[in-house]
Amino acid sequence: MKQPNPEQERFVDPHMSFARQIRAGNVRALSRAISLVENSSPEATALLAACHGAADSIKLGFTGAPGAGKSTLVDQFARRLRKDSERVGIVAVDPTSPFSGGAILGDRIRMGGHQGDAGLYIRSMATRGFLGGLAGKTADVCALMEAAGWNRILVETVGVGQDEVDIVRLADVTIVVLVPGMGDDVQSIKAGIMEIADIFVINKCDREGADRVEQEVKAMQSLAMEHTDWTAPIVRTVATSGEGVDSLHAEVAKCIEYLRSSGRLQKKRISAWRQRLEQMLREEMLLELEARGFARERLDQAATEIVESNRNPYEFVPQMLRELLRG
Amino acid sequence: MKQPNPEQERFVDPHMSFARQIRAGNVRALSRAISLVENSSPEATALLAACHGAADSIKLGFTGAPGAGKSTLVDQFARRLRKDSERVGIVAVDPTSPFSGGAILGDRIRMGGHQGDAGLYIRSMATRGFLGGLAGKTADVCALMEAAGWNRILVETVGVGQDEVDIVRLADVTIVVLVPGMGDDVQSIKAGIMEIADIFVINKCDREGADRVEQEVKAMQSLAMEHTDWTAPIVRTVATSGEGVDSLHAEVAKCIEYLRSSGRLQKKRISAWRQRLEQMLREEMLLELEARGFARERLDQAATEIVESNRNPYEFVPQMLRELLRG
Repeated sequence: MKQPNPEQERFVDPHMSFARQIRAGNVRALSRAISLVENSSPEATALLAACHGAADSIKLGFTGAPGAGKSTLVDQFARRLRKDSERVGIVAVDPTSPFSGGAILGDRIRMGGHQGDAGLYIRSMATRGFLGGLAGKTADVCALMEAAGWNRILVETVGVGQDEVDIVRLADVTIVVLVPGMGDDVQSIKAGIMEIADIFVINKCDREGADRVEQEVKAMQSLAMEHTDWTAPIVRTVATSGEGVDSLHAEVAKCIEYLRSSGRLQKKRISAWRQRLEQMLREEMLLELEARGFARERLDQAATEIVESNRNPYEFVPQMLRELLRG
Repeated sequence: MKQPNPEQERFVDPHMSFARQIRAGNVRALSRAISLVENSSPEATALLAACHGAADSIKLGFTGAPGAGKSTLVDQFARRLRKDSERVGIVAVDPTSPFSGGAILGDRIRMGGHQGDAGLYIRSMATRGFLGGLAGKTADVCALMEAAGWNRILVETVGVGQDEVDIVRLADVTIVVLVPGMGDDVQSIKAGIMEIADIFVINKCDREGADRVEQEVKAMQSLAMEHTDWTAPIVRTVATSGEGVDSLHAEVAKCIEYLRSSGRLQKKRISAWRQRLEQMLREEMLLELEARGFARERLDQAATEIVESNRNPYEFVPQMLRELLRG
């Protein structure tokens, strides 16, 4: 039994070889890996660990209200980056209804002009029922894309909920996309998202009201409590025609330069990882709970008893937890 | 040492006596208890367990975009319920920015006309940094208000994020408040919230566009996949003047009657508890983690090492978890 087993000698850790394929830039391997992450597959953690390396991709977060034209803008911006031969990955996060399964953003058939461009990778993520939060999944997907050599990663999300704020906090540069004529919509993303913008875009700026939006943003900036060396510039675009995309590209380059030279890029990333580590611990803890028989049937039964027999839920939970931790 | 200790004999479990005060309807005790829940105080679970009883309050969830006039509508609806001598509790959930600390809903100085009405209780909840999610906190606050004898509980929340969908799922009756002329705003709450409406309100119906909103809702209803015996009625209101509030009151009564007689109230509550039990287990697990030295300093340090020394986070987390579970 203690003799070397030639079968075992030849055994290659499947995660390692899979990870090697990803790191070599194999797109099919990357896509498969992302699906593992999306599905909370048990192999995902080992795979992420094996893919972790010294890569240094820049992550750009694009956020804004539905209808602000984010997809078109991201597509145009990707085209611009491709001119400099950057390898561009796009992660489009669709907030999916937990009830209907319908996506807000609608069809993601896009980027027709890019077909066959091996320097561009696009991935849509639905957001249904993720264990441990959407932001964590997005971060893991970005980590895989980074490992696969995509050095500019554009993350696109609707800026409405806490999940989206969390996603945006994981980006190196946050671009908030506004549009004229949405009235209260701008207000409704203001709390939370506006404060973390590194760059504002007023898209569809050929529409009436662009000046007003710009004034509002400036008024907000003048009221800001915390002053840093960076005041978010306001760039006007018409994404459908490509107008203003070069300016946006220049502002992004300036911002990255500022973040690097001031040491803020480092600080942002440490703070993002701090948040992510806490999420990861929670997620792992939940997986551990499930492994120990976080029995769904028992929860179903308990819920019924709470309503029908007036069972005390606040007593049931600590008791179930004690059992699970002992297990 | 084994002799009875008279001091111990006289000892009264503080949670029990506190709980007794709450159940007797003591408003100051209730307010203190809600603060314990909001602050994730360690006493909260024992207190909730001690307060749990056979109460049967009806919980009404009001949701809609910012600016839809929810607060005014909820106030008017509370006035109407008070005419029937219902004891009315209001929970107003303000989505607070994690960055600025500012609330979307703005001032909550309200209900001037109700001052001194002992049959009405209003509580605003900020939403900053809640462990384990806002929906759970809201459910616990409702449980305390229920224990204190408030038999109609109105929960008011902005219908934009996943948190809000989760809150609304905990209600017995969900009222979605729409307004004319918000354009894409209606679309942006559609996914998720629209599907669970028991009643639609078109508020500010004196504005242009009320007919269009009604047509849109009807079009959506005709496309609905799942048909039940209940089609959500559409009620028009002008909350500022009180117009339509009586109709809303009548529709709510009809809906409650339908939910009771069809057995759907029971089913909804079982499903809400099922979801809540899972949340509670997660929250308790995290508290247990913290008690075992889920060391914040270690996470800070690890985050720095990940960025500065390229430490592998996906290896660090399982290792830290193993240590914690052993502890």
